[in-house]
Amino acid sequence: MARSTIDGCNIRLILEYDGTNYCGWQSQSDGNTIQDFVESAIYQLTQERVRVIGAGRTDAGVHARGQVINFPLKKALPINKIYLGLNSYLPADIVVKLAEEVPVEFHARFDAQKRIYQYFISLERTAVFRDFCWQLFYKLDMSLLQSMAGIIVGNHDFSSFARHETQTRGKTCRVSESTWRIQDEYLIYRIVANRFLHGMVRTIVGTMIDVARGRFDLTEFNAIFQARDRNRGGQTAPPRGLFLEEVIY
Amino acid sequence: MARSTIDGCNIRLILEYDGTNYCGWQSQSDGNTIQDFVESAIYQLTQERVRVIGAGRTDAGVHARGQVINFPLKKALPINKIYLGLNSYLPADIVVKLAEEVPVEFHARFDAQKRIYQYFISLERTAVFRDFCWQLFYKLDMSLLQSMAGIIVGNHDFSSFARHETQTRGKTCRVSESTWRIQDEYLIYRIVANRFLHGMVRTIVGTMIDVARGRFDLTEFNAIFQARDRNRGGQTAPPRGLFLEEVIY
Repeated sequence: MARSTIDGCNIRLILEYDGTNYCGWQSQSDGNTIQDFVESAIYQLTQERVRVIGAGRTDAGVHARGQVINFPLKKALPINKIYLGLNSYLPADIVVKLAEEVPVEFHARFDAQKRIYQYFISLERTAVFRDFCWQLFYKLDMSLLQSMAGIIVGNHDFSSFARHETQTRGKTCRVSESTWRIQDEYLIYRIVANRFLHGMVRTIVGTMIDVARGRFDLTEFNAIFQARDRNRGGQTAPPRGLFLEEVIY
Repeated sequence: MARSTIDGCNIRLILEYDGTNYCGWQSQSDGNTIQDFVESAIYQLTQERVRVIGAGRTDAGVHARGQVINFPLKKALPINKIYLGLNSYLPADIVVKLAEEVPVEFHARFDAQKRIYQYFISLERTAVFRDFCWQLFYKLDMSLLQSMAGIIVGNHDFSSFARHETQTRGKTCRVSESTWRIQDEYLIYRIVANRFLHGMVRTIVGTMIDVARGRFDLTEFNAIFQARDRNRGGQTAPPRGLFLEEVIY
């Protein structure tokens, strides 16, 4: 059954990847991005050159357990063949967790209602999970972390926590959940929002950690947040602790 | 305070390591073992050439979260200096979790009462934890796994699950705990014993998985176990799923 590009199949994948050895999700001229490897695997399997659409543009070194992408296919293929075939062509640090055919209108980025990120801080030295957390041995004030997490819930302008690049859709994000929790030797920050600015989670985490270790106080955190000026924000937490966990439609 | 080698300090370390890039724990002529890197870090810190004693000789690719080692030092050093110094000289995939001075008689290998190993099987594809589990997508019979786990508890000759190399201390091990459990998408085997033969946990796991996926049955498993003959055992599970979790004294 031959289909045109426009009304061909629309395939949705859920991807997990270890971002350690990649220059991030989004395709760029010097290659070595996760998107490049996914598009190459699709080409090897189908002989079709496609551009895939990802729900979240994870930075270099950032991981995903639930990145959602979609792409069109002209030739229909059994979905299990797509699932197994892509997994066989992808490197071991990128896996397809789920493949399904979705309505042609589905758009992984624009249709996403919420994205869930988690940031992992290890309070102990770790060799095994060193690529998947920020190792921090300062004494941190948990109640301060919880207070700051609460402050950012709601509709806010997140300019103070974004990279300088211009973004066309404004700087307002609707944060529906923002919490710190302790689990074994990990301190985990979970944030759910309709959208995220570039570098936002890592700058929020870095700034909150600056406060929790006493570099500046809660009043200053509020002032930074209100200032809508990236020059005011704190440090950027390293990418290796960040996971795109899930995208909700 | 100068001390002779014999009555010098005796230092105990708890180590965590990602064994992926090493030829196992034990020093060997072609190097690249965890022991070599630990001894080199001790030399860099103290200028003393020591041989360290490890509680468990983990194979190439096997990990540890609680390897225990000890070594003598002629010159006394503050224990925190040893802890921080060794961590600064060790590569990121080997970390000292704890350092302490112990009585000179303490011997990490001979004084160990029990060793705890865990083997992680991922029932889903994973990119992030690919170096730390065996990815298996067969349907496995959990009740069969539990039955087999129970069979090996107690004092038994484990020849059927050991490598062929001669071992001088006999083949009998006292297994005090042996269980399978499900945790999230992982199937985890935990085994506690006074000692382990070379390759024993991986051969037990590999053989049990052979039964649980229907390659042979429980009667045959019992026959293999009774045979005391390694030629009868099943496959050897890959090293990347195995962790030396803890050593009890």
